[in-house]
Amino acid sequence: MQNRICDLFNIQHPIIQAGMVWCSGWKLAAAVSQKGGLGIIGAGSMYPEVLREHITKLKDATDKPFAVNVPLLYPDIDKIMQIIEEEKVPIVFTSAGNPATWTSWLKQRGITVVHVVPNVKLALKCEERGVDAVVCEGFEAGGHNGKDEITSMCLIPQVADAVSVPVIAAGGIGDGRAIAAAFVLGADAVQIGSRFAATLESSAHENFKQAVVGAADNATVLTMKNVVPVRLIKNSFYDRILEAEQRCADPDEIRAILGKRRAKAGIFEGDLVEGELEIGQVSGLINDIPSAGELFDRLLEEYREASRKLPEF
Amino acid sequence: MQNRICDLFNIQHPIIQAGMVWCSGWKLAAAVSQKGGLGIIGAGSMYPEVLREHITKLKDATDKPFAVNVPLLYPDIDKIMQIIEEEKVPIVFTSAGNPATWTSWLKQRGITVVHVVPNVKLALKCEERGVDAVVCEGFEAGGHNGKDEITSMCLIPQVADAVSVPVIAAGGIGDGRAIAAAFVLGADAVQIGSRFAATLESSAHENFKQAVVGAADNATVLTMKNVVPVRLIKNSFYDRILEAEQRCADPDEIRAILGKRRAKAGIFEGDLVEGELEIGQVSGLINDIPSAGELFDRLLEEYREASRKLPEF
Repeated sequence: MQNRICDLFNIQHPIIQAGMVWCSGWKLAAAVSQKGGLGIIGAGSMYPEVLREHITKLKDATDKPFAVNVPLLYPDIDKIMQIIEEEKVPIVFTSAGNPATWTSWLKQRGITVVHVVPNVKLALKCEERGVDAVVCEGFEAGGHNGKDEITSMCLIPQVADAVSVPVIAAGGIGDGRAIAAAFVLGADAVQIGSRFAATLESSAHENFKQAVVGAADNATVLTMKNVVPVRLIKNSFYDRILEAEQRCADPDEIRAILGKRRAKAGIFEGDLVEGELEIGQVSGLINDIPSAGELFDRLLEEYREASRKLPEF
Repeated sequence: MQNRICDLFNIQHPIIQAGMVWCSGWKLAAAVSQKGGLGIIGAGSMYPEVLREHITKLKDATDKPFAVNVPLLYPDIDKIMQIIEEEKVPIVFTSAGNPATWTSWLKQRGITVVHVVPNVKLALKCEERGVDAVVCEGFEAGGHNGKDEITSMCLIPQVADAVSVPVIAAGGIGDGRAIAAAFVLGADAVQIGSRFAATLESSAHENFKQAVVGAADNATVLTMKNVVPVRLIKNSFYDRILEAEQRCADPDEIRAILGKRRAKAGIFEGDLVEGELEIGQVSGLINDIPSAGELFDRLLEEYREASRKLPEF
């Protein structure tokens, strides 16, 4: 099989595990890369030296390609990029920032660069700035998201039509049926977050994984749109945000309610009441916590089954 | 090809043209039914006797199966249902209301009943009430919508897993790629609105059709969530709603800004400034105004092309 993303990343299957705060350390990324996909370490929740440790452990665990996801608004961004260069990270996914800032610096060092986009305009800008591929992330995706609310069903074909670089679809992909859907819509690969967050190798707290398993179709919401749009599972913390939003509270008050460390409390420490439970809408169809390797095989099998079911007419 | 929706409706292709206010009269519905899909007359914008006229003209134009879409909150609902019985309408799509109210009445008269749902819970309720099929409508769909904001990518597989009646996917389907996506996600058929709104046979005003053609990926928004959630193209009218919402105006004030007849003004009379331009997010990839028949052939061709592109791995 010829696939532009498999060629670009030198991987076997065009399935990428998303970099996620507090979920995707070296264990999860190594497990996915070892299966022939692309594992990503999420630097967003790591101090620079913690990131270095994860990269080192991942390289000890597998000699397959891997990537690091870097939110460009990260405070220690210079140190993070220095570590990425020193540790010879082959692929970097950048997000939450301007693709103009770091793309050429990374490319000059021989690093493959992918940027995450929520709309066609930014996809075109990324291509102009020389990225090697784009992730188009739909409204249904977990965690931080754009304000345009464009869903994967609408975004994937429009981005695929607009750019000539490979397109990686993200948002709403929780099983092999959605992988097949992304491909027929025009994607070259898929990036899967939520589904890998609920695996044994995910570093999320067991309570959080169980909350993902227990989530219904309507359990999540994209909230805090005037502060920092994020999709999360509705809980007591969210109820307070909602109450404040419904009386048009000042953004500063929303920021004060949010405070610090809530994502860590929710995802890593398992506080389901007061934590920020960042996860995608697709958690509604996640019903178990397999190993990442088992899941990877299942996704391939489901994909093959879904592909065979297309009716002829 | 065996297909549960083709068998249920006695049609050739599992492609349904959505009932849409001010767009889908007898001309559009007849053109789609004539091609072997299912055309739907949208009763939501018709006085009872106007509906009767449309049904009569449609039956003169084609002897193929067709349907009528009835929003159950319609004020003259009893008269509408009486006309449906008298004119021997074979299939009724109900929406915006409780499936318990009319399903058994319609079924007793030998009419096939389909209800539109925005989440798994209502899909299960519909099945329990004896509907013959459900339309699962994603967040990206145009016009009136649910509050759960579940996208087609997430909703289709979850509804398909939950019910045993056939599932018709709606929302975000504007070309053959999305038809293929809906099928691999588990749908038995697709219902297409926005794309048919911008055809020659659509009774929408030329200005409105051009607005759909000109819409970018992020041109639409789901708004008025506390009054009557509706997806529309952002314009001057929407700016006033947004301004009121951003200062948490009372729902009554929002209702007053909305007033009456705005959908007619926007869609049927072509007032792009003050009208309510109800359309789906997929309008971003609609770029022309073909005849419905031409479009139908193109959808089939695009579907076949997309189906062939699924990589093997």
